[in-house]
Amino acid sequence: MTPQRRHDPESRAFASDNYAGVHPEVLEAIAVANGGHQVSYGEDVYTEHLQTVFRDHFGPDAETFPVFNGTGANVVALQAMLDRWEAVVCAETAHIHVDEGGAPEKMAGIKLLTVPTPDGKLTPELIDRQAYGFGDEHRAQPAVVSIAQSTEVGTCYTPDEIRAICDHAHGLGMKVFLDGARLANAAATLGVPLRAFTTDTGVDVFSFGGTKNGLLLGEAVVVLDQDAVRGVRYLRKTSMQLASKMRFLSVQFDALLGSDLWLRSATRSNAMTQRLFEAVKDLPGIRIDRPVQANQIFAILPPEATAALQKRFRFYTWNEQSGEVRWMTSFDTTEADVDAFASAIAEELHAVAS
Amino acid sequence: MTPQRRHDPESRAFASDNYAGVHPEVLEAIAVANGGHQVSYGEDVYTEHLQTVFRDHFGPDAETFPVFNGTGANVVALQAMLDRWEAVVCAETAHIHVDEGGAPEKMAGIKLLTVPTPDGKLTPELIDRQAYGFGDEHRAQPAVVSIAQSTEVGTCYTPDEIRAICDHAHGLGMKVFLDGARLANAAATLGVPLRAFTTDTGVDVFSFGGTKNGLLLGEAVVVLDQDAVRGVRYLRKTSMQLASKMRFLSVQFDALLGSDLWLRSATRSNAMTQRLFEAVKDLPGIRIDRPVQANQIFAILPPEATAALQKRFRFYTWNEQSGEVRWMTSFDTTEADVDAFASAIAEELHAVAS
Amino acid sequence: MTPQRRHDPESRAFASDNYAGVHPEVLEAIAVANGGHQVSYGEDVYTEHLQTVFRDHFGPDAETFPVFNGTGANVVALQAMLDRWEAVVCAETAHIHVDEGGAPEKMAGIKLLTVPTPDGKLTPELIDRQAYGFGDEHRAQPAVVSIAQSTEVGTCYTPDEIRAICDHAHGLGMKVFLDGARLANAAATLGVPLRAFTTDTGVDVFSFGGTKNGLLLGEAVVVLDQDAVRGVRYLRKTSMQLASKMRFLSVQFDALLGSDLWLRSATRSNAMTQRLFEAVKDLPGIRIDRPVQANQIFAILPPEATAALQKRFRFYTWNEQSGEVRWMTSFDTTEADVDAFASAIAEELHAVAS
Amino acid sequence: MTPQRRHDPESRAFASDNYAGVHPEVLEAIAVANGGHQVSYGEDVYTEHLQTVFRDHFGPDAETFPVFNGTGANVVALQAMLDRWEAVVCAETAHIHVDEGGAPEKMAGIKLLTVPTPDGKLTPELIDRQAYGFGDEHRAQPAVVSIAQSTEVGTCYTPDEIRAICDHAHGLGMKVFLDGARLANAAATLGVPLRAFTTDTGVDVFSFGGTKNGLLLGEAVVVLDQDAVRGVRYLRKTSMQLASKMRFLSVQFDALLGSDLWLRSATRSNAMTQRLFEAVKDLPGIRIDRPVQANQIFAILPPEATAALQKRFRFYTWNEQSGEVRWMTSFDTTEADVDAFASAIAEELHAVAS
Repeated sequence: MTPQRRHDPESRAFASDNYAGVHPEVLEAIAVANGGHQVSYGEDVYTEHLQTVFRDHFGPDAETFPVFNGTGANVVALQAMLDRWEAVVCAETAHIHVDEGGAPEKMAGIKLLTVPTPDGKLTPELIDRQAYGFGDEHRAQPAVVSIAQSTEVGTCYTPDEIRAICDHAHGLGMKVFLDGARLANAAATLGVPLRAFTTDTGVDVFSFGGTKNGLLLGEAVVVLDQDAVRGVRYLRKTSMQLASKMRFLSVQFDALLGSDLWLRSATRSNAMTQRLFEAVKDLPGIRIDRPVQANQIFAILPPEATAALQKRFRFYTWNEQSGEVRWMTSFDTTEADVDAFASAIAEELHAVAS
Repeated sequence: MTPQRRHDPESRAFASDNYAGVHPEVLEAIAVANGGHQVSYGEDVYTEHLQTVFRDHFGPDAETFPVFNGTGANVVALQAMLDRWEAVVCAETAHIHVDEGGAPEKMAGIKLLTVPTPDGKLTPELIDRQAYGFGDEHRAQPAVVSIAQSTEVGTCYTPDEIRAICDHAHGLGMKVFLDGARLANAAATLGVPLRAFTTDTGVDVFSFGGTKNGLLLGEAVVVLDQDAVRGVRYLRKTSMQLASKMRFLSVQFDALLGSDLWLRSATRSNAMTQRLFEAVKDLPGIRIDRPVQANQIFAILPPEATAALQKRFRFYTWNEQSGEVRWMTSFDTTEADVDAFASAIAEELHAVAS
Repeated sequence: MTPQRRHDPESRAFASDNYAGVHPEVLEAIAVANGGHQVSYGEDVYTEHLQTVFRDHFGPDAETFPVFNGTGANVVALQAMLDRWEAVVCAETAHIHVDEGGAPEKMAGIKLLTVPTPDGKLTPELIDRQAYGFGDEHRAQPAVVSIAQSTEVGTCYTPDEIRAICDHAHGLGMKVFLDGARLANAAATLGVPLRAFTTDTGVDVFSFGGTKNGLLLGEAVVVLDQDAVRGVRYLRKTSMQLASKMRFLSVQFDALLGSDLWLRSATRSNAMTQRLFEAVKDLPGIRIDRPVQANQIFAILPPEATAALQKRFRFYTWNEQSGEVRWMTSFDTTEADVDAFASAIAEELHAVAS
Repeated sequence: MTPQRRHDPESRAFASDNYAGVHPEVLEAIAVANGGHQVSYGEDVYTEHLQTVFRDHFGPDAETFPVFNGTGANVVALQAMLDRWEAVVCAETAHIHVDEGGAPEKMAGIKLLTVPTPDGKLTPELIDRQAYGFGDEHRAQPAVVSIAQSTEVGTCYTPDEIRAICDHAHGLGMKVFLDGARLANAAATLGVPLRAFTTDTGVDVFSFGGTKNGLLLGEAVVVLDQDAVRGVRYLRKTSMQLASKMRFLSVQFDALLGSDLWLRSATRSNAMTQRLFEAVKDLPGIRIDRPVQANQIFAILPPEATAALQKRFRFYTWNEQSGEVRWMTSFDTTEADVDAFASAIAEELHAVAS
């Protein structure tokens, strides 16, 4: 007896790309990998093949570890890169700092040394604000620089910007981790291959996000420099991120990265964001301060407009004080969705103004 | 472009029930929940409905939290039940002790106080071997008794046995957690409803295992007594067990527990184990000491027979010293699978004997 | 055979109050408590009496737990006040954040939510910059406000300022911890009893620092509101802060707080700082921006002057970028020490200027 | 105003060697190191000299880190020897397992793999009961063997026994830690230098206990093989074991180990235990099963005798079930103390028998 459908499969919100479901090609891939028995915990043929899939994108040194979610990917990778007494330099707005319930600290004792940034992006100069005190036992030793691509506030680093960060960090004896929960969106924005701002820039370890780009669930920890990590395999297990039926994680990534699905989906998502941006950016009463470089827009609206709009469409208020809200699109957002939402925004802004 | 099928969907092993894939009804349920947008992180309609599904089985007080895997379920539940200075009494063979890479200690600082048991099952008397030192700050304070149903060694508690444990633990001011990675198999064996040895016996919190009973992935932490826990929701997040697209976890459980699928699958799996047991138990050269009460058999074979057999069928050696091996069946094991395996066992035992 | 004296007992630096040794009255107290046997781990008569000593200062509800050092006091107290998923709001300059090697995060998984402050002091408004997101599982839940008296940068809160913080925190459902590593200095500065800015303002738990005020070693965790903590006694043990021969910690506090020694020592230390401040504040080439309210001065000097001076007297550079240095006095600093140091400062500033 | 003496300096118990106070020569050493300023956190001349003191005993490779207490020493050392996913093999009776409130697990996520032993001592065969599963991510990786000298139950390893353990562990790629809370007692028993069963046997890291041998407080982590550790200095700080006025820890060890005080005190303590053993071992109604090899006796008495005796002398019941009690002597136990206690034992046994 199949469970009953309980939702409207045509309704779409602008709250988060993880409100979306599974891309049909991904669901089909899961079915392909189903049936029969496969060795559990990653010794299956799909996970074996996955290494090739990632190496095609990220070069022959890439080693890939599928995990369940983004917090898991971040905490596994950072543990593997850090000794017990070390710390991570990251932006004040970093997801690991503001949106993971304290998982890095609570699960792994990882101290985060945060830096305010104008746009969510670190620079060598900003890193230096926390990268000091080497050798001083009173200071958690800065050992990893963590950046996100795209960032939590929707901005993208250029390859050169990441290369400068890696060079600077390595010069300090530090390593670089890149949180790639929305890596595909960044590549689509920049119009470069995925390796252009990972492998080619000196990033040591990164996570590749699948969930926000159409997987049922799944992220991957990708190690580019084996000297930058210890014990990833063990840490994935102790961090409760080792899937027993791993074939079903791996085959989803195969669907995503073994074809151009990752790029199609990210391009669509980004394009829908740009369409929305174009439609609303000049409306009276709206202010958009942050660059719109991936699949999210941060807009400041009159609170009454936000309140009225949230009755019609689901999205999040980002900053209660400033009235800033966040709008996101996903791989399945349609032009009609965007146009309807843009009209609603215009209506509510108009209603407030009059 | 759908990924290529890379495995034989008709091959089945006897190594673990997590070698199996996804039950077709479960895969169909995932498709039903797909499409459109749903609020992430558990505020979707499928997760809302899930509460009802579990309450139908476990009573009106049950509160259910889907998580990714069994280690995650155990670590989330135990954290919620324990203060920082407290400890867990469990069998020396408990999965949390021997098979989770130290996750309870490493992720949550949980000390396990273990007791040798004849059959993987605790009793009030065995609990008392570790349940002492209350009030002594030099001793991690025993606060939770953790049992598994069925146990790691394939035995089942009767409802009365669990009731006796709960009464005893509660009398000591302790709580009871039940690791239900194979709860369905136990119910099938005992021929009683799931609540007969959970809700009805005084268990405070338990996990319900889906992965080993035909889900793609998914376990659930189920709280029966709210006074036994604090902060489950927060701890699921910090423990990296909060799925963003939770609808796809929840709908799988709906498929499993909203129909009789859980029982059909567990019954089938158990029956195949019994069929295998009957076929091999009297073979010369085999010794089966442990009761066969769920979907696993522990057999002691001559090492040469094991070696020869493992070239033909995948299964695990449980104890290198004694030569004990473990055979498991799953929801998709067929009579033909069992018969072929039993024949192979007979052949290899015969070959060794001659 | 007594070890050889290897240092000059007349040399004194301006680097830290923990460069000083043991006050003679404290050393005498240790000798008084010596000889014979006393029950270990705090069941001795000196620790019993210590409760009275602290209650005389802090009221009848105070419960006191001696520990080894300041980091230990902070980590024990905060663990007792926090659930596993909760967080602490503190100043960006807080000792727990910048000077404990990450102990709160690494030992106890405590997330610190920091706020920039002009003078090391929190206010209700500054607390609000981090005290939000209650009920949101993605955010480590703000549960404790941590302040220091005196602060890491040598400023003191007035009782009214602390009361405002406590009222605000309690109104938010949060608790207040006060890091009192230099509590005695603050009382000497403010000219009020110790309880005026602890018990009388609503602080829930505080630490009382002995080491920096003439003890051989020793800090105390003092609980004013039993409802604000759980398991202090157990947490002191698991946090490796339970002294076996506790009588020797307790009797030192008896010497300090059972007489006016705490006040004499703090007053002397503060007075020497003021003497130094008066002597140097108007020297050309020096800039002192921070209020001088306890036993430390933060001065900005030309780097060459600092370098020359550090060859003659030991003290720390606080901020490499700005050239700010820190000078501290202690209970044993003499007027002659100060005058010699002030002359040296004047000389080196003069040398640089010419 | 010196605090009042509140105890009888002539009363001595048989409960623990940490009921005793400070040896007069140690107290004198503290006074010698007092006065003037010394750099804090270990950069003082006494801590510098301490390296020489320990090297005279343990060879030129020994590096010594004073800490506050035994739990601290153990947890700092084990962290430095273990990666995050690794585990420790130790006796079921090990102090780190039964008497530290779970500090290794709770503070450092260290999993202990315990082995039952007949006499508190591990052997290569016993180690093998837990030293398996290398490379299996489901098992916390056995990486350190931890032994104690003397053991928690009063037995001593011979140098050959320790050498066999070290050879075996190293052959498995594991390291050896020795908990030396009562190292001096073992040396006195064995009549060999301290290095005979540490440096000379291949032990990688050990702790040296001062508190139980007449210090006010203080233990030392001693690293014999630098390749066996990482980051001790940082871990001491994050583990809240870094004393600011470290000169007062170091000078106590100088008094203990820079002369023959360590041996005099341990010899005296052991001799008093032997005197007690001789006086009571043949009394009717007493049973002493464990070898008496250091400064403790485990005796089984009728419960009524124990109860009556505990009204007259303080000591601990070791095992409620069996009625086993523990008697300990310390550096200050006198022959008269022993004789009085032996008489009391005889009286109470006689009273019970009649």
